[in-house]
Amino acid sequence: MPTADADRDTTDVAALLERGRTLATPVLKAAIERLAPPMDTVAAYHFGWIDAAGHPAEGDGGKAVRPALALLSAEAAGAAPEAGVPGAVAVELVHNFSLLHDDLMDGDEQRRHRDTVWKVHGPAQAILVGDALFALANEILLELGTLEAGRAARRLTTASRALIDGQAQDISYEHRERVSVEECLEMEGNKTGALLACAVSIGAVLGGADDRTADALERYGYHLGLAFQAVDDLLGIWGDPEATGKQTWSDLRQRKKSLPVVAALAAEGPAAERLGSLLAADAKANDFENFSEDEFAARAALIEEAGGRAWTEAEARRQHTVAIEALSGVGMPDHVREQLTALADFVVVRKR
Amino acid sequence: MPTADADRDTTDVAALLERGRTLATPVLKAAIERLAPPMDTVAAYHFGWIDAAGHPAEGDGGKAVRPALALLSAEAAGAAPEAGVPGAVAVELVHNFSLLHDDLMDGDEQRRHRDTVWKVHGPAQAILVGDALFALANEILLELGTLEAGRAARRLTTASRALIDGQAQDISYEHRERVSVEECLEMEGNKTGALLACAVSIGAVLGGADDRTADALERYGYHLGLAFQAVDDLLGIWGDPEATGKQTWSDLRQRKKSLPVVAALAAEGPAAERLGSLLAADAKANDFENFSEDEFAARAALIEEAGGRAWTEAEARRQHTVAIEALSGVGMPDHVREQLTALADFVVVRKR
Repeated sequence: MPTADADRDTTDVAALLERGRTLATPVLKAAIERLAPPMDTVAAYHFGWIDAAGHPAEGDGGKAVRPALALLSAEAAGAAPEAGVPGAVAVELVHNFSLLHDDLMDGDEQRRHRDTVWKVHGPAQAILVGDALFALANEILLELGTLEAGRAARRLTTASRALIDGQAQDISYEHRERVSVEECLEMEGNKTGALLACAVSIGAVLGGADDRTADALERYGYHLGLAFQAVDDLLGIWGDPEATGKQTWSDLRQRKKSLPVVAALAAEGPAAERLGSLLAADAKANDFENFSEDEFAARAALIEEAGGRAWTEAEARRQHTVAIEALSGVGMPDHVREQLTALADFVVVRKR
Repeated sequence: MPTADADRDTTDVAALLERGRTLATPVLKAAIERLAPPMDTVAAYHFGWIDAAGHPAEGDGGKAVRPALALLSAEAAGAAPEAGVPGAVAVELVHNFSLLHDDLMDGDEQRRHRDTVWKVHGPAQAILVGDALFALANEILLELGTLEAGRAARRLTTASRALIDGQAQDISYEHRERVSVEECLEMEGNKTGALLACAVSIGAVLGGADDRTADALERYGYHLGLAFQAVDDLLGIWGDPEATGKQTWSDLRQRKKSLPVVAALAAEGPAAERLGSLLAADAKANDFENFSEDEFAARAALIEEAGGRAWTEAEARRQHTVAIEALSGVGMPDHVREQLTALADFVVVRKR
């Protein structure tokens, strides 16, 4: 875990994220313009480029970690960062396809501080535009017409299937009282790890890397994704609402079986037992909308007392370590290795 | 239009369709088995291999025109029919992805004489399994790892985008009082023509055909698709329920703006005018569930009187002719040309 030079690291990472946005966004916008109306408008709303009334907006496009990784990925293979742009755009399209469909399946009404697409434009448009983004992702890659593009598209398809598997697991876990730590990690690996793994290998594949290099980069990305998700799960309970833009105790409000919760439930001792009966009773009563801040705080305190918070913090560090180790077997320019390391550090220390 | 040798043609076509089913179905089933539970079960239900309770079923797998075309397509390029199998399976996966999502978007409760997936397993499974089939289609092609597979996947992606565009048009037309014949043909070209075009070119691409040959085969398939849809639109109003398995006047019950309807409305004269005011009043009243057989029969008679039926019959013949003409510029074994012609004849004269 990084302690010194935090300021310099933050600046580096901000520049990396900015470069990803700058190079990928125009190509992403041009891709969206290919969609037939009204899908182009619905997609532009989803990406935050226009508001619900169709007026230009300055939306929150998210952290843009994936595009930054895709460009670094091309550089890891010795290619120019630009070689990774179609991969960056394709990965962003798949990510947003899954958001559109997941928000509808999960009934989530808010995303990036705005009403979700199904809420504004209806369920049919959420399905349709999701489908269109998924198709567009493959189109962007395959129209390159090279063998490398086919290999990149294949990796993207594998990641997409993992994403879909993860959502299937997420849905089935919702109906279960208990989920094991292993099941939770597998689900998070599918939902977050696989696409991050693809982002950090797709640029290298497009840049001509062999499978061994691409596989090692995927391992880095997969474990970085798990570290990312562990931090997300921590922020989902103990995050500062001002920084995250989410409600206090947001994952508890949604009864999410996130890592701190499943780790606490899997622990031994009186705190874990009290938490277990409390959450079981909560699930039966199903009246979270009437809960006070204190009632959520009490549950969060029990999760912490049972060790769920400390375990998840340690898990983020473990995954961070495994991610960095995966890079050691791959030859790449020093500055790329440093930047991939800085990005991994950023993911683990971020507050939002 | 074929008149002589109808018996022999029918036998040939039955054998072609059977061959497509025999070669493609085992590969399709193996692909579905890759899906994580419960998606594999939901997909098996959709394909009619099991019933809602999970017991083996002998489902109606549809006419299987697309797999038959994909195998002939490989033979058109001088390859073995087996070379077209991954293409046949990929096209069937995309077709069924679109059925799963369209049934949900359209609120259709019945498909192939059974409850639709969203009705039995819920909307989330319909979205999720549709997504999984779409991803699987690309996986099946791209794991071949050849440049040809990449080209095939690219054509499939183009067809998928057209399919999605067509569904977007279909949805937007539902809310409009009038749709022009051109708009209807464009929508049907997207919803039916594009994937048939892909089916009949994808085998050739996998078999090593050049773009010129693949493009000519696509033209044949596109116009065959339009002929197919024109016949479907005729059967949707005047089809024999015993043969089609649909209700009498099924497209009228659904207020579908199909070709006979839009052609009749676009005509001049008293019948077209009476039809126009009648359908406008129907749309306002919106109480089709209380309609008698006679009330539907009266509307069908007006469509016929205004020339909508005759126009659509002529349109099916026109598209059939254009399809056959597209084959003339491509070199291919004689028996393949004959079989593609027999399939085109079958599409236009079929009763179901």
